Amino acid sequence: MRIIKTIQEMQSFSIDMRRTGKTIGFVPTMGYLHEGHVALMKKSREINDVLITSIFVNPLQFGPNEDFEKYPRDEQRDIDIATENGVDVLFMPTVDEMYPTKQSIQIEILDRVDVLCGKSRPGHFDGVATVLLKLFHITSPDHVFFGKKDAQQVAVVDQLIKELNFPIQLHMVETVREEDGLAKSSRNVYLSPKERSEAVHLFKGLQIAQQKIFDGEKNPAIIVNEVKNYIITHTTGKIDYIEILRFPSLQPLTVIDQQIIVAVAVQFDQARLIDNLII
Amino acid sequence: MRIIKTIQEMQSFSIDMRRTGKTIGFVPTMGYLHEGHVALMKKSREINDVLITSIFVNPLQFGPNEDFEKYPRDEQRDIDIATENGVDVLFMPTVDEMYPTKQSIQIEILDRVDVLCGKSRPGHFDGVATVLLKLFHITSPDHVFFGKKDAQQVAVVDQLIKELNFPIQLHMVETVREEDGLAKSSRNVYLSPKERSEAVHLFKGLQIAQQKIFDGEKNPAIIVNEVKNYIITHTTGKIDYIEILRFPSLQPLTVIDQQIIVAVAVQFDQARLIDNLII
Repeated sequence: MRIIKTIQEMQSFSIDMRRTGKTIGFVPTMGYLHEGHVALMKKSREINDVLITSIFVNPLQFGPNEDFEKYPRDEQRDIDIATENGVDVLFMPTVDEMYPTKQSIQIEILDRVDVLCGKSRPGHFDGVATVLLKLFHITSPDHVFFGKKDAQQVAVVDQLIKELNFPIQLHMVETVREEDGLAKSSRNVYLSPKERSEAVHLFKGLQIAQQKIFDGEKNPAIIVNEVKNYIITHTTGKIDYIEILRFPSLQPLTVIDQQIIVAVAVQFDQARLIDNLII
Repeated sequence: MRIIKTIQEMQSFSIDMRRTGKTIGFVPTMGYLHEGHVALMKKSREINDVLITSIFVNPLQFGPNEDFEKYPRDEQRDIDIATENGVDVLFMPTVDEMYPTKQSIQIEILDRVDVLCGKSRPGHFDGVATVLLKLFHITSPDHVFFGKKDAQQVAVVDQLIKELNFPIQLHMVETVREEDGLAKSSRNVYLSPKERSEAVHLFKGLQIAQQKIFDGEKNPAIIVNEVKNYIITHTTGKIDYIEILRFPSLQPLTVIDQQIIVAVAVQFDQARLIDNLII
């Protein structure tokens, strides 16, 4: 596996690959890799000649009071995991390499961001879009892979690719879970043992919603209320949101009749966890 | 020459070219082609395997009171000129093809736009940047070509390419002029005979500035004033701006000591003309 730290070298590599007819799969990450990322890598390897993974904790997508500084990092472990999982190039730029000056080109996402995480993290998806624009230009991928756990991110990337006409195919890969159902996340490491045992109830709450829908309940408000009560009863975390929306448009709805997302975010002491089911 | 009207077909073509190792030169235009455009095409042919030219009058870069509707168009003449000048693919999308829905991703340029045309055309360069992002993704060029006459546009594209890490090389091509010195422009067609004879004084004014600088004048205010008096005396047009700035940063300056641009814009009855010299 080749480790590349500069934009210029990464760009030369990907242009060379494209020129020789190789297809490129790209898995952008913020590192602290886990089985969720490995699932993305696996999917990419199945359909592309070359697998590029990036590790970059993007300051632009963190708010001033968020966890940019203490976001978990473990470079050597990430290198080992990437090597074991068939990554051809691991792109690990510094913040200075990616943002040598303050960005004077502002990307603002107007749709799909006034709900869910976008509501409690203003500017978050503008930062995500900015870094992805840059990374897509640097790695020239044919296919990109994102986890379903970050469903709103997938919806925004879908919009970014379509509206700006990127010649890129987006793949949404199933969320990987712990044995008890907790969605794998780099931030799980910041849960206390007590919180870790409670965290499973995010997924359990979503499963209750799913069961309700399968049983014929069509009123989102009733379902949201039930999940809310369940999570309040079973965890000490503070609920940030529980929402049911259309997917991927993330439009509100009053009757459940098409593809929807049930999404939840809970703030624990040191970690904010999110999870969702698309039904 | 192949004429392509859909994004999908254009994108397939350019991806195929890239995959087979061909280099792509791209000349984006708003049509009503003239020798200025032909110079860009010629330059592109010299250094690329494939030449793509686009004709698209981009509504996003026109203000509500500007000349989008009456911007000159002549499709058949453009096709003839493109054919004669070695264009391989002429990309001519409709407005609906480029903007099927209202853009929900906003691009805002913060630098280099509070001067010159950016000052009198708010949002103009945001619209330019948006359409170029799309066109660059659709045509996957290795090299893009812009005329020096639109120097602020070149400065903004330079920033767009660098800051968003496009794997694209920008070329600025010398302004092509009529025999008397008037810069070629699609908008010249809207000058009355009297205005046409006056319009040459934009360039003459710039030449006066250049001579002053060669003679050792280092104070931009003195030069601007002299050019202003000259143009007021010799034309009936209304001066929009005469400015001397650093190039390409477009920063203000008090002493002429590095590469600078002297730029002028004059509003005639039906046409707003711009011109500049980079010294």
